[in-house]
Amino acid sequence: MKAADLFQQIQKKQSYLCLGLDPEKSKLPVHLLSTEDPIFEFNKAIIDATADSVVALKPNLAFYEAEGLAGWQSLDRTVVYCRENYPDLFLIADAKRGDIGNTARKYADAFFTAFPFDAITLSPYMGRDSIQPFLDYPDKWAIVLGLTSNSGSADFQLQELANGDLLFEKVMSEVGGYGSTDSLMFVVGATRADYIRRVRELVPEHFLLVPGVGAQGGSLDEVSALGLNKQGGLLVNSSRGIIYASQGADFAEAAQREALNLQRQMKALLERYC
Amino acid sequence: MKAADLFQQIQKKQSYLCLGLDPEKSKLPVHLLSTEDPIFEFNKAIIDATADSVVALKPNLAFYEAEGLAGWQSLDRTVVYCRENYPDLFLIADAKRGDIGNTARKYADAFFTAFPFDAITLSPYMGRDSIQPFLDYPDKWAIVLGLTSNSGSADFQLQELANGDLLFEKVMSEVGGYGSTDSLMFVVGATRADYIRRVRELVPEHFLLVPGVGAQGGSLDEVSALGLNKQGGLLVNSSRGIIYASQGADFAEAAQREALNLQRQMKALLERYC
Repeated sequence: MKAADLFQQIQKKQSYLCLGLDPEKSKLPVHLLSTEDPIFEFNKAIIDATADSVVALKPNLAFYEAEGLAGWQSLDRTVVYCRENYPDLFLIADAKRGDIGNTARKYADAFFTAFPFDAITLSPYMGRDSIQPFLDYPDKWAIVLGLTSNSGSADFQLQELANGDLLFEKVMSEVGGYGSTDSLMFVVGATRADYIRRVRELVPEHFLLVPGVGAQGGSLDEVSALGLNKQGGLLVNSSRGIIYASQGADFAEAAQREALNLQRQMKALLERYC
Repeated sequence: MKAADLFQQIQKKQSYLCLGLDPEKSKLPVHLLSTEDPIFEFNKAIIDATADSVVALKPNLAFYEAEGLAGWQSLDRTVVYCRENYPDLFLIADAKRGDIGNTARKYADAFFTAFPFDAITLSPYMGRDSIQPFLDYPDKWAIVLGLTSNSGSADFQLQELANGDLLFEKVMSEVGGYGSTDSLMFVVGATRADYIRRVRELVPEHFLLVPGVGAQGGSLDEVSALGLNKQGGLLVNSSRGIIYASQGADFAEAAQREALNLQRQMKALLERYC
């Protein structure tokens, strides 16, 4: 999928919503726990209920890895189910991998071939050869951490360099040169909307993946005003606010309602800014 | 396992060798390819042949993830086999994970509970809350990337901060305060022995995990002279130089020979510096 294809989906669905599929067994509706694969059954119901309102799905792999082999089985079933039933959904492995060149190629094989994702999130700490192998796959994406939404982001990402830049600014301007706007996005946390303006100066054309709206406190209006561009340029993630809108038997309907609510807000924001 | 237990193993085996178990199907001896789980059979033979000479095993997860579900099955069998047959081996998941606090807790569950590793490698880019959850597990370890051995390490890790420190120096002195010498190690690449002296100023007591000796060109003598301390303080990793010493039917014997050769060098270095 290229940037233009992703923008086409955004226009078609009038949405730039990315759904974070981060299931925890302890939070699943009880009636699913007796099924053979509760996490897959949960994901399947959530995806069916929200697919009209979302353009991207982002399983965070920690939630699957925590279940051991069974978790990887649930992830595999989820990805295959999406590919077969919703081929236009943009599938992001939120894996935050990052390793030396020959090992990075193995991670690219893992998430672009063994598991057919469209994109993977990456940590930039190890530099260019930890990112480049992912950019060499046609129509696949590397989504590199720029400025994250957690409290620890201040520890290193906001450190000032000798030339006056903050570390995340150096990362984004440097990594921005590794790939094109058809292969590279950045993660920018919504809880720091004041920085999104600066990010748009550094990478005006690249898509941004923005977590932190909703449970983490970011403002959709503010992020959209600063982040949207003429090619869309924005995916806003929501996870807990949608998938746990209800933990009862009506969890899928509640998730649908929440996703639709966000999609309607996004429709208005697209008309205004895009 | 605490630092003193690890040092006891180092003294017992007269070795601080960490074996990188990074199997690639295309490089396995052909006679293994017809077995049900070639990667596990390869690992098992390598482990049996080298267990007397090594104190730690470090599977890099990329090589397993690249094989999809089957790879995770191979990893699971390998870890269970080690736990049952070599309970004193220190097992490191070379995963380089790093995510926000509640997600980091899931990764800790994954690698300390679902898969019973002793330690996991972590990327520091997201700061304290991405590391702390791993330090809260008793007798488990976080091994945080300081200065890595790849070409891209210069891109960000060697950036100079406004206060004159290099980024990796800031990372190591900051993260060094998060945990004790019983819960926290650092990755320091052997290809930059000139920096190991500086690292020992920053974290004189912590264990260092040093990749890059052998295939990547680092010198064992130099690293040991600078890195060993009175509590051992050093794990030196070798992967390809041991596991692919031969790709024929004698691969396990060849691996044993290489591991033993390194162990003998380490014995002499321990007598000299420790």
